Amino acid sequence: MILDELGVPIVLAPLAGGPATPALAAAVSNAGGLGFLAAGYLTAAALGEQIAAATKLTGRPLGVNVFVPGPPATAAAIADYAAELAGEAHAASTELGEPRYDDDDWDSKLALLESAAPAVCSFTFGCPDAAVIARLRTAGSEVWVTVTRPAEAERAATAGADALVLQGAEAGGHRASFTDDPADDLADGIGLLSLLQLVRARVDLPLVAAGGIGTGAAIATVLAAGASAAQLGTAFLRSPEAGTAAVHRKALDADTATAMTRAFTGRLARGIRNSFIDAHSATVPAAYPQVHYLTAPLRGAGRKTGNPDLVNLWAGQAHELGTARPAAELVAKLAAEARAALRQAAGRWPG
Amino acid sequence: MILDELGVPIVLAPLAGGPATPALAAAVSNAGGLGFLAAGYLTAAALGEQIAAATKLTGRPLGVNVFVPGPPATAAAIADYAAELAGEAHAASTELGEPRYDDDDWDSKLALLESAAPAVCSFTFGCPDAAVIARLRTAGSEVWVTVTRPAEAERAATAGADALVLQGAEAGGHRASFTDDPADDLADGIGLLSLLQLVRARVDLPLVAAGGIGTGAAIATVLAAGASAAQLGTAFLRSPEAGTAAVHRKALDADTATAMTRAFTGRLARGIRNSFIDAHSATVPAAYPQVHYLTAPLRGAGRKTGNPDLVNLWAGQAHELGTARPAAELVAKLAAEARAALRQAAGRWPG
Repeated sequence: MILDELGVPIVLAPLAGGPATPALAAAVSNAGGLGFLAAGYLTAAALGEQIAAATKLTGRPLGVNVFVPGPPATAAAIADYAAELAGEAHAASTELGEPRYDDDDWDSKLALLESAAPAVCSFTFGCPDAAVIARLRTAGSEVWVTVTRPAEAERAATAGADALVLQGAEAGGHRASFTDDPADDLADGIGLLSLLQLVRARVDLPLVAAGGIGTGAAIATVLAAGASAAQLGTAFLRSPEAGTAAVHRKALDADTATAMTRAFTGRLARGIRNSFIDAHSATVPAAYPQVHYLTAPLRGAGRKTGNPDLVNLWAGQAHELGTARPAAELVAKLAAEARAALRQAAGRWPG
Repeated sequence: MILDELGVPIVLAPLAGGPATPALAAAVSNAGGLGFLAAGYLTAAALGEQIAAATKLTGRPLGVNVFVPGPPATAAAIADYAAELAGEAHAASTELGEPRYDDDDWDSKLALLESAAPAVCSFTFGCPDAAVIARLRTAGSEVWVTVTRPAEAERAATAGADALVLQGAEAGGHRASFTDDPADDLADGIGLLSLLQLVRARVDLPLVAAGGIGTGAAIATVLAAGASAAQLGTAFLRSPEAGTAAVHRKALDADTATAMTRAFTGRLARGIRNSFIDAHSATVPAAYPQVHYLTAPLRGAGRKTGNPDLVNLWAGQAHELGTARPAAELVAKLAAEARAALRQAAGRWPG
């Protein structure tokens, strides 16, 4: 297992949609962690270029994360939402995007990954079929599946996953849940520490813990709970190697609370609270990726003009603890803090 | 500090509303942890009797938790909710309760606590004035304040609290938030691990970590994150010493997910999902304790007839990991597991 060979038990979260770059992934891998590239929103060809670029920057293992496509939503609800957003598009001097459905170039990406065989292929928004998992393993990759609920962990284990990424409700960005049904919202949101216990009681696979991990003490924490590594995303968003937009970096530098919303993409995600979230979370339909495409020009306008209220400022609950260090420096600092926290906790209670 | 003197870093959660008993509190203290009594819903006189009973059963430190009263809500919204519940009351052959406001006997309880001077007085639903905190400290108690957000932690520290109980969103029962405004729900729900990091970055007080802690590994976890102890409630609900209703015990024995709702009491709380939560969470007003009194006969009927769909089955997200062990046995088991988890985590990464 790659997890047994890492110098530092830190895995970079995929950070699809801009922040992920070959430079960031390579920097984390070169520092002893495991860097990740995000296939989400890219064409297979663009992903191929990113893998090639990252491979030039590091000889160490790298991971690639892929979105599993879901079923299309009904058009009527999307039209209502488009009408609701029309005024905001007009005010931002832009037009809404076409709310189209696509599968994020699924087949081509799988073919590419089979040929590129990165150290790890991880999946978000679902569990690939056992046949797909077997194909990628045969090609030489480990297959990790991201889960948010105990039942998803059992399903991924049955399908043949090598490891599970447990995403707690604290995590920034999209919830990785296999389904995204508003009827489940009331009972959704299992916190990372609960999820670690619940999954460990049911599944014997290696676990990578994600969600709200912003300090070395928190890394120590998830190791003590039985995880093999911690996955951090928000902590790296302000690194110079990340492709994070300026308006997003600026928002991360304040202590504004985060909120969970479908308003930007039609799929539940956590970001820094802004007026767009407050105005539209109650009415947006669960329609991904159609709403993602619908709001794309608005979000683009917000990034261009530096208006944070139009932008999906993805961030985990611990975002205010982040700094703007280079990725390698951050990995070294977090690792030193984590070791110290483990030593201290063990020493405080010698038994 | 009491926290420095505990043989085992396990604190019993208060468990107001039935499960808390002098026998349970004393058993946890006798096992080396810190037992707690819950003043909530009791008269000051009844609380006095509980303190006397527990003190007979243990010579070790005990804590008492008190609800801080909030402002009354408007009557109109409560009348609408009563109309909504009328059919369910009829079907259960009972009548709804009078939705009255009270302050849970606040002044009398403070006077009692000043005279009884338990080792710890802890507070939920708000932060007492600095004068109240000073009074209780002068009487000989440590004062702990339960918080769910970083700003609440700062306020409690300023008011003079000796320690903070950090309640993550994973916790069963009522959210301890100082205010309970539905407008905040979207941005509420900080997970325990994030809360530990966020509060530690702002406040230097000893921290007790609560929410979804169901295993020794999770106790090790919060110690590694810098907490002085873990507070567990749900884990003790099935102990023979607890006053938990039979229908509640039975529900805890399944793996049904929990949900956050105001439906039972008018204040946000986490319980095992049932049809009452699904039917009324969207319409219930934020009106505590009026809704608590309104639904009390319904909940009583559910407990009496063994109908789990009428009962507030408070439980944290890790409830399915619970067992029915005696409290002392559970404390010993969790402590042994926690020590082993800390040793293992420190050993896996010798650095």
